[in-house]
Amino acid sequence: MIDASLLQEYAELLVRTGMNLQEGQPLVVACQVENAPFARMVATEAYKQGCREVIMRWSDDFLTREKYLKAADAVFDETPAWLVEFFEEYDRHHAAYLALISPDPENLSGVDPMRLQRAAISSGKATRAHSKRQMSDEIPWCVAGVPSVKWAKKVFPDLSEEEAVDALWQAILKTVRVDGIHSAADAWEEHIKKLSSVAEKLNGYQFEKLHYENSLGTDLMVGLCKNHRWEGGCSKDGNGVRFVANMPTEEIFTSPKKDAVDGVVYASMPLCHHGSLIEELKFVLKAGKIVEATAKSGEEVLKKAITVDEGASYLGEAALVPYDSPISNLGILFYNTLYDENAACHFAFGQAYPCLQNASSMSEEEQREAGLNESDTHVDFMIGTKDLSVTGILPDGTRIPVMREGNFVI
Amino acid sequence: MIDASLLQEYAELLVRTGMNLQEGQPLVVACQVENAPFARMVATEAYKQGCREVIMRWSDDFLTREKYLKAADAVFDETPAWLVEFFEEYDRHHAAYLALISPDPENLSGVDPMRLQRAAISSGKATRAHSKRQMSDEIPWCVAGVPSVKWAKKVFPDLSEEEAVDALWQAILKTVRVDGIHSAADAWEEHIKKLSSVAEKLNGYQFEKLHYENSLGTDLMVGLCKNHRWEGGCSKDGNGVRFVANMPTEEIFTSPKKDAVDGVVYASMPLCHHGSLIEELKFVLKAGKIVEATAKSGEEVLKKAITVDEGASYLGEAALVPYDSPISNLGILFYNTLYDENAACHFAFGQAYPCLQNASSMSEEEQREAGLNESDTHVDFMIGTKDLSVTGILPDGTRIPVMREGNFVI
Repeated sequence: MIDASLLQEYAELLVRTGMNLQEGQPLVVACQVENAPFARMVATEAYKQGCREVIMRWSDDFLTREKYLKAADAVFDETPAWLVEFFEEYDRHHAAYLALISPDPENLSGVDPMRLQRAAISSGKATRAHSKRQMSDEIPWCVAGVPSVKWAKKVFPDLSEEEAVDALWQAILKTVRVDGIHSAADAWEEHIKKLSSVAEKLNGYQFEKLHYENSLGTDLMVGLCKNHRWEGGCSKDGNGVRFVANMPTEEIFTSPKKDAVDGVVYASMPLCHHGSLIEELKFVLKAGKIVEATAKSGEEVLKKAITVDEGASYLGEAALVPYDSPISNLGILFYNTLYDENAACHFAFGQAYPCLQNASSMSEEEQREAGLNESDTHVDFMIGTKDLSVTGILPDGTRIPVMREGNFVI
Repeated sequence: MIDASLLQEYAELLVRTGMNLQEGQPLVVACQVENAPFARMVATEAYKQGCREVIMRWSDDFLTREKYLKAADAVFDETPAWLVEFFEEYDRHHAAYLALISPDPENLSGVDPMRLQRAAISSGKATRAHSKRQMSDEIPWCVAGVPSVKWAKKVFPDLSEEEAVDALWQAILKTVRVDGIHSAADAWEEHIKKLSSVAEKLNGYQFEKLHYENSLGTDLMVGLCKNHRWEGGCSKDGNGVRFVANMPTEEIFTSPKKDAVDGVVYASMPLCHHGSLIEELKFVLKAGKIVEATAKSGEEVLKKAITVDEGASYLGEAALVPYDSPISNLGILFYNTLYDENAACHFAFGQAYPCLQNASSMSEEEQREAGLNESDTHVDFMIGTKDLSVTGILPDGTRIPVMREGNFVI
């Protein structure tokens, strides 16, 4: 059994450092019913910080799977109006959104991929305004993990259910710097400072392109937007309040220029998407568009994922993570992006984060012209290896080494 | 541990006999997160019956209590617009509503009664249209119990948590005629037939008044509406489909005439309201209105409950339950109306069920004129004892014994 005081510190960390919940602010918490005990700790901590109201969005993997397998077909093209109103209402109150995820990577395996795609398109469209507010950091949000039995057994298949959950708790707590000895809050302040300093160095260069190369066969030129910004560690919401959108986070990221990505890229880890495992993913890109997508397994799911709309076949994120990051050093495949993306350099296809100087004062049209991709989807895939080279190319052609042997050299 | 096959039969009973779920109909299930395993059984059974989609309304007693104790004060005067839209949307789809209740009678003890009252007024107003559709049986609904640890420990304080939950499961299954030997569905068909036959006899008489008397001191004249209908056992929804709104149910009920109730009435069991226990309740009524309300404990909560609006101080339901009903014979105080109301004759103050011939073709104004009470609340309280007499009085003054020594003699 994990010591309750460690869970308590984790709950505090999420509410204070993650959400940085302000007096009088509502908190919306998404959580599996299985994890009610931890959700209760979070709620109590939130009220301690003066939370206006904790609103729960419960879910249950079993029922989600039943729905995708057995509900009437028309359901998958509908997103209920009340759900749209739910987000509009709490966004108006400037709520903070905490997602406690406990992803069972195989929960939706065997489900008709068309149902998943149709549901994703429908909900993507219906809740687009809320998603934009979240992706542009207008409202504060944080994604963090809590073990479920099924997820734990996937990560630690040789342990008993109870041991596996304990082992996954231990791993999760390590990734978020809760060790029971040092203050996790202090450790995060230092960590955020470090990430910011690398981001600021990169921002100073304003590279025109990045050149990615490794022995898997990746050879990709990634154009960056004019006046792009590298971000990492923390964000600021519409009221200027700092929050940490992912816990853990080890990445520095920016937005690629939509039509300026060329070459070939190989995933370095399996991608778990909508409950299916996509292994040995390979993309060929021309003028930004993914023109070839293959995988050893899950190729059908992959091809559907990059065609949910026009923007789904263009990149929306380029993220740099050192190969010897703490998560990477755990040597655990979590089967989930939150953890695995912080173990390796990655890209995402789909919607771009508006990583531009003055993005907030630009119209959608201006952001599009600057090269930001638009889509109702956003899917990360890992490409970092221990021999990855990333080279920054300045407008005059000068090549500056950014990463060598998987780690920052800048 | 309760045999899973008994729980399975209970889940089937709720979906088929309780909701009588139709092919293509959505099912909205309210349930505590603690009872997810049983909710999953219900959902699977619902999909077997061709359910369009199972929509969960999860709740958690701990978080509800935290909210009432700690949330910002303004929250209790607000009912979110998305919740109103939630009901409107599923009502439009003619959804069936199943409430799986696991009431901890002390969950809200110590909470400011004003907060409870304000929240009740706010949500009563906001969801009035939905409540009316439910109370008039336009949409099908069913309330049934599932044990929680806290409820079980309240009912069986001397047992361990696990034993108490098992004992409460056993008691609940008995009340709904799931015995593992006979078909519960068949037992319910017979039970419904019996209840209907008593109701039809009473409907034939069309009593002007009922006279209630017992040794507790109850001496009450309850006027009945012209063309009133006694109902019991099952109901028919707006599409003419039969459903059972309460499982268990042992009562025959009708609507008192709002301004024609006079005398004194004593509760025969404690009333658990908003988490407070109201003991030894006594009402004095004049021309329908509760003009005196006292209790040995919980008097403040009681006084608030009958003043949430004008109609809260008038009766909305008169229900007859034989003293030797199966639930009564269990000899268990469940601390919850669903069970305790089916152990004894009772009244409710607040909103009336429209128990009138041709109620569906009457306007609200016509229903009001016929004597139906209107309120945003509806609270049952038990008055049946083993020496209760109920006498029907015909318009010409003839007195017909309906119940003697607590049981039907009609």
